[in-house]
Amino acid sequence: MILQHSTWSEIEAYLGRSRGVMIPIGSTEQHGPNGPIGTDAICAEAVARSAAADADILVGPTLAVTTAQFNLRFPGTISLRSTTLMAVVTDYVRSLAAQGFARFYFLNGHGANIAPLLAAFHDLHGEHAATAPHGLRCRLRSWWEYPDANALRQSLYGEWEGIHATPSEIAIAHHAVPATQRPAPTARPEKLTAASLREMGGDRHFDADHHRARFPDGRIGSDPALVGPTDGARLLAAAAAGARADYAAFLAEA
Amino acid sequence: MILQHSTWSEIEAYLGRSRGVMIPIGSTEQHGPNGPIGTDAICAEAVARSAAADADILVGPTLAVTTAQFNLRFPGTISLRSTTLMAVVTDYVRSLAAQGFARFYFLNGHGANIAPLLAAFHDLHGEHAATAPHGLRCRLRSWWEYPDANALRQSLYGEWEGIHATPSEIAIAHHAVPATQRPAPTARPEKLTAASLREMGGDRHFDADHHRARFPDGRIGSDPALVGPTDGARLLAAAAAGARADYAAFLAEA
Amino acid sequence: MILQHSTWSEIEAYLGRSRGVMIPIGSTEQHGPNGPIGTDAICAEAVARSAAADADILVGPTLAVTTAQFNLRFPGTISLRSTTLMAVVTDYVRSLAAQGFARFYFLNGHGANIAPLLAAFHDLHGEHAATAPHGLRCRLRSWWEYPDANALRQSLYGEWEGIHATPSEIAIAHHAVPATQRPAPTARPEKLTAASLREMGGDRHFDADHHRARFPDGRIGSDPALVGPTDGARLLAAAAAGARADYAAFLAEA
Amino acid sequence: MILQHSTWSEIEAYLGRSRGVMIPIGSTEQHGPNGPIGTDAICAEAVARSAAADADILVGPTLAVTTAQFNLRFPGTISLRSTTLMAVVTDYVRSLAAQGFARFYFLNGHGANIAPLLAAFHDLHGEHAATAPHGLRCRLRSWWEYPDANALRQSLYGEWEGIHATPSEIAIAHHAVPATQRPAPTARPEKLTAASLREMGGDRHFDADHHRARFPDGRIGSDPALVGPTDGARLLAAAAAGARADYAAFLAEA
Amino acid sequence: MILQHSTWSEIEAYLGRSRGVMIPIGSTEQHGPNGPIGTDAICAEAVARSAAADADILVGPTLAVTTAQFNLRFPGTISLRSTTLMAVVTDYVRSLAAQGFARFYFLNGHGANIAPLLAAFHDLHGEHAATAPHGLRCRLRSWWEYPDANALRQSLYGEWEGIHATPSEIAIAHHAVPATQRPAPTARPEKLTAASLREMGGDRHFDADHHRARFPDGRIGSDPALVGPTDGARLLAAAAAGARADYAAFLAEA
Amino acid sequence: MILQHSTWSEIEAYLGRSRGVMIPIGSTEQHGPNGPIGTDAICAEAVARSAAADADILVGPTLAVTTAQFNLRFPGTISLRSTTLMAVVTDYVRSLAAQGFARFYFLNGHGANIAPLLAAFHDLHGEHAATAPHGLRCRLRSWWEYPDANALRQSLYGEWEGIHATPSEIAIAHHAVPATQRPAPTARPEKLTAASLREMGGDRHFDADHHRARFPDGRIGSDPALVGPTDGARLLAAAAAGARADYAAFLAEA
Repeated sequence: MILQHSTWSEIEAYLGRSRGVMIPIGSTEQHGPNGPIGTDAICAEAVARSAAADADILVGPTLAVTTAQFNLRFPGTISLRSTTLMAVVTDYVRSLAAQGFARFYFLNGHGANIAPLLAAFHDLHGEHAATAPHGLRCRLRSWWEYPDANALRQSLYGEWEGIHATPSEIAIAHHAVPATQRPAPTARPEKLTAASLREMGGDRHFDADHHRARFPDGRIGSDPALVGPTDGARLLAAAAAGARADYAAFLAEA
Repeated sequence: MILQHSTWSEIEAYLGRSRGVMIPIGSTEQHGPNGPIGTDAICAEAVARSAAADADILVGPTLAVTTAQFNLRFPGTISLRSTTLMAVVTDYVRSLAAQGFARFYFLNGHGANIAPLLAAFHDLHGEHAATAPHGLRCRLRSWWEYPDANALRQSLYGEWEGIHATPSEIAIAHHAVPATQRPAPTARPEKLTAASLREMGGDRHFDADHHRARFPDGRIGSDPALVGPTDGARLLAAAAAGARADYAAFLAEA
Repeated sequence: MILQHSTWSEIEAYLGRSRGVMIPIGSTEQHGPNGPIGTDAICAEAVARSAAADADILVGPTLAVTTAQFNLRFPGTISLRSTTLMAVVTDYVRSLAAQGFARFYFLNGHGANIAPLLAAFHDLHGEHAATAPHGLRCRLRSWWEYPDANALRQSLYGEWEGIHATPSEIAIAHHAVPATQRPAPTARPEKLTAASLREMGGDRHFDADHHRARFPDGRIGSDPALVGPTDGARLLAAAAAGARADYAAFLAEA
Repeated sequence: MILQHSTWSEIEAYLGRSRGVMIPIGSTEQHGPNGPIGTDAICAEAVARSAAADADILVGPTLAVTTAQFNLRFPGTISLRSTTLMAVVTDYVRSLAAQGFARFYFLNGHGANIAPLLAAFHDLHGEHAATAPHGLRCRLRSWWEYPDANALRQSLYGEWEGIHATPSEIAIAHHAVPATQRPAPTARPEKLTAASLREMGGDRHFDADHHRARFPDGRIGSDPALVGPTDGARLLAAAAAGARADYAAFLAEA
Repeated sequence: MILQHSTWSEIEAYLGRSRGVMIPIGSTEQHGPNGPIGTDAICAEAVARSAAADADILVGPTLAVTTAQFNLRFPGTISLRSTTLMAVVTDYVRSLAAQGFARFYFLNGHGANIAPLLAAFHDLHGEHAATAPHGLRCRLRSWWEYPDANALRQSLYGEWEGIHATPSEIAIAHHAVPATQRPAPTARPEKLTAASLREMGGDRHFDADHHRARFPDGRIGSDPALVGPTDGARLLAAAAAGARADYAAFLAEA
Repeated sequence: MILQHSTWSEIEAYLGRSRGVMIPIGSTEQHGPNGPIGTDAICAEAVARSAAADADILVGPTLAVTTAQFNLRFPGTISLRSTTLMAVVTDYVRSLAAQGFARFYFLNGHGANIAPLLAAFHDLHGEHAATAPHGLRCRLRSWWEYPDANALRQSLYGEWEGIHATPSEIAIAHHAVPATQRPAPTARPEKLTAASLREMGGDRHFDADHHRARFPDGRIGSDPALVGPTDGARLLAAAAAGARADYAAFLAEA
């Protein structure tokens, strides 16, 4: 059930059945030579809508423009300051919490969203939970955290999954929005060590000049040429199943 | 050309041809008994993408969650504070202006966006134009302002166009996203005077409790039952043509 | 009744009779070769005080410094960022709303105030109306919107009214504060098309460098040399009558 | 020379002679049984304009609405949050500093303005002085600090000067704006100790409920009944002479 | 009793005995040739802890990084914007006020803290006192204000106490943290007039470039070479006694 | 080398040798029945100072009051909003970056600091790196991440390390500040599953009411009774060695 495709009375009825909502969040940033700039938002939205396809789960509007300052030297990247994104998340959650929603599950497609979202959750829990009619609890989960999806991407791409413009996310994006399909580059990027990749976990990058100089075509240790024709569908299915289960567990928590 | 479906090198190439970008902006708020909550964003995005279909116009990610506090008592409505929306617009524009974009054309589908966007433009022009490599200029235009689109909606619905959950916007939304189609209510809402409608121009409403009490099913003087089967396509075509021409004029200004 | 000239116990007594207040808002910006920098604030204050002269209307302190970044290259112009003006309006209204005031009527003299004030009203209605003891409702009206005042200025100056440093506003300012009288320039400015003037409605200007280059003496399509000796008094009377009636209607709204 | 009564070209010419500006700042708050709510702004403006009457001193628009939360339980009081006032002062100074003004002398009439203004000066000096074409320096002085004015009020009212709704400020306000004249109350307020008055220096008060309970008619240790018919003129003259001299010294500092 | 050295249940028990807390606040800025950068925080913390040593007074964590933009050209200085420090103070007080604390006594060691703290108190009293379970009242006192401490430093150093990197504060810092001891410079700084020192009261300085040029080794009219071996202990004892008494009086106020 | 114990000229000299600084960051929040409220700050400061003891590393003032809203129902906890902490970190870094510092290594003792710090780093890298004379790069590392320290705590406490009021952090705090030593509780808290602990990684908790109800004495799966007499010294040494090595690697990065 897609919030923005529904009428208000349909949402009113849904609130009688559930107080939860799933919110896709991505980014608008370069994704290497053949990945669309909207990869992260496309993936998060596709996973959430797939998860909701056969379940009574409400999916809210996707937050597609988020924090990605380190990619601003690649044209087309759009970045919010952390404080701006936090204000957006705050207002989004407060709006629905005042109507009776109480469980906010952010389905994430972009590592650099994790920090500002958790920071925003801190303030939402601290400032607004007490006055929301049914309280409020926020959680963020990235689609690659679901065990089956994670195992699948590792098995498909191994050490060439990398951490940005990864074959797995490009596979899903190309599958979900065929208009974004572009041929993969033939050359592999620099091979990165596991330690180096770990260091950048959660997109812990420095400034945009440094970033473009360091990763000239935008990929970070990834080889999207490894994507096979059915990978997108398989990864999407695995992630959607993981999301559905994890969301259900979140709603069931005491 | 859709920014989020493109690669960064495609945007880099576009910047060699044009410094302009068209940005759809809508809302996430109730649209009466049979209009989808995402009507305004669906319309703005459809108009922008139609305008860009046969032209070398870049369309950025749609801003779908904006200011609509007066509708918050209708479940599903999500509203940003004005200050939050202004921060979003500021960061969006600054990101692209630093890359060389210089003309920002917001194609609007929601009256209540006009005030915060012009307020944000004031600060963007005052604080950031001087440091952008090619300067920056922002403009907002609502799709119903284009003369042909405006004439068509008046001719189709006359006094029952109203100002919210209007037949014209629901026609476009149902046409652009068929999954949103719902049957129109059979009863008309209260008939409003022209003076009363004018007073609310730009969505100059009071608080959300007052608003729901005043407009119990969400419509403001509109009768979506008047929508005929081809209206959506005709209105969309008229608005898209208007947008294309007005955008070209904006880029050509000295 | 002028708030700042009254004692607190007089205001306490007034609150027993009325919950409304009229608040003049202008600007501090260049007004061409012979208009005082304070024109907009002088006009708004004069209209409000005239409207209140024979009525039980409370007039609050004038907001004289507002948003006018586009005129900052003309010395003497002082501009608040939109966000600053919005904070001022918010605090002003909240202070009085907590005391029992509930109807806030901003009498405006500056087109560029409209956007930030409506943006501030959005947040006031959304964040503070529910906790004000008698609720709160805000409205903004520019003195030239009152039908009789508008008709008069059109009949007096026609196509040379222009949209900035207009003969009508300079007539009122020179009448209300004789110390501001200066001889009009003999040369007319560039003649502007109606479309061009409409485009700039609400002071939708770009940055200050562009603005001064485009309008070198500060006038926008206006010819203040047309002002006759009694125009100021007549325009003021017409606007004040309009304000008094419109304010009464605002207070009477359900 | 009054900024808002001048044309922009007059200010441009002034900038060729001086980089200084004097800015009156007061408050909008209760001033006891017979003092106008605008007392502080009336006094500051009167002193500044008197100081400038025979000198080439530019006087900017008066900041009349400032910080006075402790008086909000007295109807008619309007208070900005400290952060709002600081933003106003910041924008005011930045606007003029970008035009070449460099010395900003705030002539103050309200003790509670001192803290937020000095806090704003800190940030102005830290964030903006380096980019202003001629630098920027801010100073605040309260009119009662000038030695002759201070000596005169002490000699006239002694221990009954108090610290709020003082006879001296009411004398000036009644003199400067005769429409504000009201008879003094016949009863004296509670006599306060010097230590107690000192404790409240700079309007270091607690919350508004406490304040109204503690000072039921709004006076703090003051007896406005002591005002003689020529006091206002004498105090104003003394303060204006002090302001003129101190302003000249400020401009002359290395 | 030191808050951060206690367990939460000890604080819970304390709240049964007292609603007051003493909060040291200093700075991190240059203190001349032989004063440690942390002088102000060291002094404030030492005075507060000494005051609490034999009394049931809770001392909260020291605010060591505050506002000192004028010293930023001296390496090692760290300055918060006024607005940042005000947010810190606001959150600190609100956290404890929600738990039942109601009297917040800031023991200050840095003149430039006075303005932002009073500005923050204004907003705390205005926005938060009404919702705190036992209300809230804030006070700031600088250790040199206590009469005996003030008399002692005057008697010890007279005209060479100066107003920054003073012998008295360096004496206390060197005594409280012996690792900070450095030999005093042999040369005296420029002798400043009393009027000049008074002008800078509360650290009313201009920008950092001006400040370093004006005071090249960081001292302002002070001669730390006058410090005798027992001065630190004597000054600390005097200030601590003053703090204990003044804090008790604050808690006893109606 | 401790910044606040040094003189400004010592820091100036240090800048000739290194552009790096290590900044301890902790929290002020309950740490169970026998842990001091300042545990996290004590640990972070102790590790940083130990790391710097035999090396030419500058240690800045500790940030002891941070984000911990979930513990506010335990008296003595003090929490900043995320946005406040981010402003503090921003100003701290900007102050030193303007002086030539370029590598900022935050040594962390509190899981809930990770999100707001990374969010602040995003904006620092995006807004301020380009104007800092030597650029700026920020990194955060928690002391328990260093491999040897992590292995040691696992070997000492295994499944009873838990994630809050852990034996390892209490061991270090009790060792570093003997005045904080309190006997451990005899009863173990509820045993938590690994999955449950992982879910709360980074202190991803909900609101404070829920948190106190869920963890009534403040411990989360930890048993501080396991602490042996030499554990604190051993853990501190391991963490300090890890910090020294990791900091050196950070400074050496291209």
